[in-house]
Amino acid sequence: MEFSAREIADLLQGVCEGDPDIRVSQLAKIEEATKGTMTFLANPAYTNHIYSTEASIVLVKDDFQPEKPIQGTLIRVKDPYGALARLLELYKKSNPEKTGLSKLAFISPRAQIAENTYIGEFAYVGDGVVLGKNVRVYPHTYIGDNVHIGDDTTLYSGVRIYENSRLGARCTIHSNAVIGADGFGFAPQTDNNYKKVAQIGNVIIEDNVEIGAGTTIDRATLGSTIIRSGVKLDNLIQIGHNVVIGENTVMAAQCGVAGSSKIGKNCMIGGQVGISGHLTIGNDVKIAAQTGVSSSIEDGQIIMGSPAMEASQYKKSFVYFRNFEKLVKRIDELEQVIKKLKSY
Amino acid sequence: MEFSAREIADLLQGVCEGDPDIRVSQLAKIEEATKGTMTFLANPAYTNHIYSTEASIVLVKDDFQPEKPIQGTLIRVKDPYGALARLLELYKKSNPEKTGLSKLAFISPRAQIAENTYIGEFAYVGDGVVLGKNVRVYPHTYIGDNVHIGDDTTLYSGVRIYENSRLGARCTIHSNAVIGADGFGFAPQTDNNYKKVAQIGNVIIEDNVEIGAGTTIDRATLGSTIIRSGVKLDNLIQIGHNVVIGENTVMAAQCGVAGSSKIGKNCMIGGQVGISGHLTIGNDVKIAAQTGVSSSIEDGQIIMGSPAMEASQYKKSFVYFRNFEKLVKRIDELEQVIKKLKSY
Amino acid sequence: MEFSAREIADLLQGVCEGDPDIRVSQLAKIEEATKGTMTFLANPAYTNHIYSTEASIVLVKDDFQPEKPIQGTLIRVKDPYGALARLLELYKKSNPEKTGLSKLAFISPRAQIAENTYIGEFAYVGDGVVLGKNVRVYPHTYIGDNVHIGDDTTLYSGVRIYENSRLGARCTIHSNAVIGADGFGFAPQTDNNYKKVAQIGNVIIEDNVEIGAGTTIDRATLGSTIIRSGVKLDNLIQIGHNVVIGENTVMAAQCGVAGSSKIGKNCMIGGQVGISGHLTIGNDVKIAAQTGVSSSIEDGQIIMGSPAMEASQYKKSFVYFRNFEKLVKRIDELEQVIKKLKSY
Repeated sequence: MEFSAREIADLLQGVCEGDPDIRVSQLAKIEEATKGTMTFLANPAYTNHIYSTEASIVLVKDDFQPEKPIQGTLIRVKDPYGALARLLELYKKSNPEKTGLSKLAFISPRAQIAENTYIGEFAYVGDGVVLGKNVRVYPHTYIGDNVHIGDDTTLYSGVRIYENSRLGARCTIHSNAVIGADGFGFAPQTDNNYKKVAQIGNVIIEDNVEIGAGTTIDRATLGSTIIRSGVKLDNLIQIGHNVVIGENTVMAAQCGVAGSSKIGKNCMIGGQVGISGHLTIGNDVKIAAQTGVSSSIEDGQIIMGSPAMEASQYKKSFVYFRNFEKLVKRIDELEQVIKKLKSY
Repeated sequence: MEFSAREIADLLQGVCEGDPDIRVSQLAKIEEATKGTMTFLANPAYTNHIYSTEASIVLVKDDFQPEKPIQGTLIRVKDPYGALARLLELYKKSNPEKTGLSKLAFISPRAQIAENTYIGEFAYVGDGVVLGKNVRVYPHTYIGDNVHIGDDTTLYSGVRIYENSRLGARCTIHSNAVIGADGFGFAPQTDNNYKKVAQIGNVIIEDNVEIGAGTTIDRATLGSTIIRSGVKLDNLIQIGHNVVIGENTVMAAQCGVAGSSKIGKNCMIGGQVGISGHLTIGNDVKIAAQTGVSSSIEDGQIIMGSPAMEASQYKKSFVYFRNFEKLVKRIDELEQVIKKLKSY
Repeated sequence: MEFSAREIADLLQGVCEGDPDIRVSQLAKIEEATKGTMTFLANPAYTNHIYSTEASIVLVKDDFQPEKPIQGTLIRVKDPYGALARLLELYKKSNPEKTGLSKLAFISPRAQIAENTYIGEFAYVGDGVVLGKNVRVYPHTYIGDNVHIGDDTTLYSGVRIYENSRLGARCTIHSNAVIGADGFGFAPQTDNNYKKVAQIGNVIIEDNVEIGAGTTIDRATLGSTIIRSGVKLDNLIQIGHNVVIGENTVMAAQCGVAGSSKIGKNCMIGGQVGISGHLTIGNDVKIAAQTGVSSSIEDGQIIMGSPAMEASQYKKSFVYFRNFEKLVKRIDELEQVIKKLKSY
């Protein structure tokens, strides 16, 4: 499909500057954009590209002041990144969605499937499963017995949902994520063996949650492991049994949270962070990548290091660490001087 | 099902204190327990909940001395956590198990399947596979050619077992674990290319091993990668080719062990630990979370840091690191004083 | 199959020393080799095993000088590891390969499948897919719509390839790897919520790439995430949206690369390394295991630490860190001396 600059400006409530009739059929990054494409300038670091891009249309912030002439038509909007997000979404939605129940799927006669659901080839839907409207289950996905899934949720190929899990509405679960495997609980025996502690709880995922590819969320020993509304988990994250993650907390790839820790709302957690078990992390906490959290953290803290400490303090200490050799030389010199002074 | 306090006390060889006829139908955590549920006090940190819980029955240690009156019936046992584990297991076992061979599975006519086995929908069982008694293979699991699996082992949905692997009895392998993919072996070529080194060994997993969701265990280049009896691996762990992990060693989520390292018995390894290749880790070693092990470790060591060092020393050094600024100020001051002294 | 020492020496262009008619049927590691097997000495650390091994044939470097008598026949070659790799490959190839299109697979009538392809049971091949010659798709693998895959590429069981991805020739993708899941992109909203940014780009994997089990490579927001020819990725690695990895770069298990970072050619990246977003890593860079890279790195650098610094400097600083207590004692003593000096 093609759109004119005028049509796009109307859609985004933006202002057109240049030829309003120029037409585009694709979106592209500013450093790769060619004629017939539309691009955007959201990150100031890319500003120099705007003077050389061949893009027919460039989306810019409303107060953008060009320092040189620009070839294409500008569309000025209040929030270029938000506007771009809207265009990407429209583009995505223009692709037809998968629908219908494949004859090659296994759907238990004791499952309840609401209208307009897609269940792909070789998907497995167990006894007592309840699927809401517009749920999309891609091929090879496993939905264990008595799992409930809310409206408009998508499970990509190879997702595994163990029995009794609960998923809310408008969630996206990416391929090969595993929801509800056993928590890691073993009782030590006298002969160095361990005895498995049966894990009879479940996992509850609320609404608007995104879970990345390969991420694993263990079921609770007793009670529930809970992922609150709006949480976004990236790929290959491990969430232990009985963990609770608060609303709108965002976690980057490869983080691990050990059993029974509670994480607050609106936290931002960098990649490869490890959080020990039985801790309480407050709201609005920011944790730098690779941090190792071994004690509870209060609201609003910004932490870094392994074990974790206040981030600004870590950075200062790390500068000294980096220059450790110089510091030791200063001590060496002090010792030399003292030696001389003492010898007087 | 409902049970009376007396019945449960008899089962656990415990002593009933309070109404022995009170009945419960569920287990719950002490902070969430309601009437008609049974709870437990195993961790002293939760003691204050026992005075407010609505649980009808509370499992406590035999020498527990309440400081205030408690509403429900107490059952005193020697080991509350062990007793809880037993109850959880009974609860779990009360659920009917999956049985039978699904007509929607692929089972090679050249596979040997013992009695009482479950093979779920869309499972794949290759040529020459040998499955023991009571083996349970959930939907979508792949068992490559000539894999042997011992009695009472469970493979959850989406497990991948490459050809020639050997699994013992009473193992549990969680969803999307991958056993026997190629080791990461490449021979550098003169033009910066790498040539793949074929990996013709296998993986041997002994008895009573638990392997978490998404964990990957590579086959040996030659010979075997070996996971000894009683080992417990959490989720998203990586075990390289030709690694050997000793009996009853426990490893938390997201650890990685590079090729050819040997790990001893009864080790406890925290989350996100990395162990380099070709090392020997002794028996009874404890490794703190996020440690980076780059040299061999003797029996009984407790280590921490990246690269790893003795844990108590790491903790001391880290306290100084944390207060690095103060230390540098002390050096600054010393220099000031010295300067003055010298100027006399 | 059995081979004589002479036959093997001819094959490897090596020189036979000892009985040329001795026959072997298997390869084994030097510390495990028995009669009738052939072994090798590639790593000098294993030299002492050569005097006690029962192997019938030992592959050694052409200039190897034994210090004691050796039981078996030696075959001297220029590059024992390369020769071994060749034998392993021959051994591997002696196993018959899977062929044919399973009737239990789903293959879209709108897919193009070239000759001599294997598509296993319960594999899913979507609309518009193009598979080259000799492509092997193991059971349970998902190939989304409009994916193109080059000749001689193998996808093991449970691989997930989202729509529009491009894979080159002679690639190997191990079980449960996920190619093309959504990048982790969310636009913050005023109420602490996040709005998903649709990810409309794709993943391009060039030729001769190996991707480990459970590794995840996200699609680009716009444009492509690109894995260049010859790249080798180990297991459980996370590659973010719009990342580019240069030719012949090798990455060990559990590394993570955040969105939009560009990595050069011929880099060697250790296990559990984290690389932040929007960075440029040059060519021939070496990164030690567990390093945290938070700023761009120039060609040829060797780095270590979290945050990363020059490796040799890190090692020096870490020695001081390890001995921090001694250093603080020196400062204590200096202060004592100064105090005395001042009191004069």
